[in-house]
Amino acid sequence: MASVKERLAEFSREAHELYLNQSVPYLEDPPDPLQFYRDWIGPNKPCIIRNAISHWPALSKWTPEYLRKKVGSKVISVAVTPNGYADAVDGDRFVMPEERKMSLSAVLDIIEGKVQQRGVFYVQKQSSNLLEELPELANDLEPQIPWMSTALGKSPDAVNFWLGEATAITSMHKDHYENIYCVISGEKNFILLPPTDRPFIPYGNHSNHYVPQSKPYTPTVTIVTVSLCQVCISQLFTVRGMMVPWIPLDPLDPDLDRYPQYGRARPIHFIVKAGEMLYLPSLWFHHVQQSHGCIAVNFWYDMEYDIKYNYFQLLEMLCGFPGST
Amino acid sequence: MASVKERLAEFSREAHELYLNQSVPYLEDPPDPLQFYRDWIGPNKPCIIRNAISHWPALSKWTPEYLRKKVGSKVISVAVTPNGYADAVDGDRFVMPEERKMSLSAVLDIIEGKVQQRGVFYVQKQSSNLLEELPELANDLEPQIPWMSTALGKSPDAVNFWLGEATAITSMHKDHYENIYCVISGEKNFILLPPTDRPFIPYGNHSNHYVPQSKPYTPTVTIVTVSLCQVCISQLFTVRGMMVPWIPLDPLDPDLDRYPQYGRARPIHFIVKAGEMLYLPSLWFHHVQQSHGCIAVNFWYDMEYDIKYNYFQLLEMLCGFPGST
Repeated sequence: MASVKERLAEFSREAHELYLNQSVPYLEDPPDPLQFYRDWIGPNKPCIIRNAISHWPALSKWTPEYLRKKVGSKVISVAVTPNGYADAVDGDRFVMPEERKMSLSAVLDIIEGKVQQRGVFYVQKQSSNLLEELPELANDLEPQIPWMSTALGKSPDAVNFWLGEATAITSMHKDHYENIYCVISGEKNFILLPPTDRPFIPYGNHSNHYVPQSKPYTPTVTIVTVSLCQVCISQLFTVRGMMVPWIPLDPLDPDLDRYPQYGRARPIHFIVKAGEMLYLPSLWFHHVQQSHGCIAVNFWYDMEYDIKYNYFQLLEMLCGFPGST
Repeated sequence: MASVKERLAEFSREAHELYLNQSVPYLEDPPDPLQFYRDWIGPNKPCIIRNAISHWPALSKWTPEYLRKKVGSKVISVAVTPNGYADAVDGDRFVMPEERKMSLSAVLDIIEGKVQQRGVFYVQKQSSNLLEELPELANDLEPQIPWMSTALGKSPDAVNFWLGEATAITSMHKDHYENIYCVISGEKNFILLPPTDRPFIPYGNHSNHYVPQSKPYTPTVTIVTVSLCQVCISQLFTVRGMMVPWIPLDPLDPDLDRYPQYGRARPIHFIVKAGEMLYLPSLWFHHVQQSHGCIAVNFWYDMEYDIKYNYFQLLEMLCGFPGST
């Protein structure tokens, strides 16, 4: 009789044989809402959509000069980290960025190399910061993706603005959102893993820690469940010292001696270019890098907590089963 | 550490808490295709739709008199069983019905009590028998459910005609189809169990057997996997003596001493009346009875073999895990 571990591996293999693609396919036009639901949201499969945001003024307007003129004096939240990793495992610690308030012009000064500062800077506050902190830019795009809102029957929960240095990295994690990620300028490098590869992805519990360059503190220890998205994790950090479940593995340089099971995962590497839009389905694991000064806007639509989520929770439980990893 | 069995039970309990309804809800009008996909097909949840077939002439036309006149002389396939159970476990055997060719008038004679015959008669051949055997009736209804075909982006694989005695019973099983089940006259009594209750549903391997009243034969033994729908099971019976995985439990009188885990399942009992339509999602377990002479038509749309199927296969595998039942 096969072990739980072997059954989970078989399940993951079957997912690739049954319905997953080996790469992320392109749609050349904005899709029909029903077709998009049926082909991509329902089956929980990513795709890249071209020619869906060509009409956004942002695509041609959002140069550093325009941004300085339009919103340069606005004070925004910037994640500052010593090494580019915000919300990531460093050694045995989970490191959160310092959240610094700066004018957008000051951020652009750093990105354009006009000013030198210690640390890596990344505008990445995922709390609808486009609408909250830079509402003057909202008219340069649509407040939502019309066919996605129609498909899901709801408006996005958040519209986020992303601007950062090439060294800023989003470490591997998953979110409880259907994500439409639009690149305005530059390009984003994604590594994706399907939820069904969960059996091969290591998790650890890590004590949380502010970035070393400011406000260090001594964590106390509390264990939390492993099924949390990045937003929830961030919220949990209001509870100082919370133990955080996170993925210690770096998919750019996986330590297969320590995490041999990751050798069976099938990460997909690809680039999303300016003018393109990635549909990143809920619960897909993703790691993101970018070209220097890349600007992006993403729309988070709350996921449905239905049978797929129910099954994923079972998978999560089983991945913690003795002999499963 | 909880056992696999306990984890599966927790998974099933979570399904009921997360997204399943305690009864089967009613829609009062034919739905919008996208909304139907999003609310029912995607989440794999049953519902009853009213006022969706009111315009079908069949609803008023299909009296025994009309059927005799229009198609009385047509020869059709009828399942004949000693006790009303076709495709069911009897003792330690899986019993298939005798498939008898008869005129529809002869079937109506039996149902109307004009002729006495041994056995229970049920027109239930699930191979698009409405279109294949009784095409003259097709104009009395639509060839497909328009909003369902739009939602799924395809036409039905089969349109089946059902007519039978009150004692004819469809034993508990699941199908690999999205099923739209329309009651034309009389009523159908359904017992449904969600796929997530699979951990509580017993399966056994049973040697197949023709009904005792004709053509007995001695089976040889071959073991097959448990994930087969009723149609595949029927096809497998061309291989005589195949061991058939089937549910030995009778939900009308469950033997909880023998199958105590079924006590944790949550069957839903309900009636579908003339003019109503049941959406019976793929992989839901169902047991069906009917009023005497009930007429129904169902549409089978092929299911998608995507992430939900993939997860269900994992569940099936785990239900065979030592200590899981």
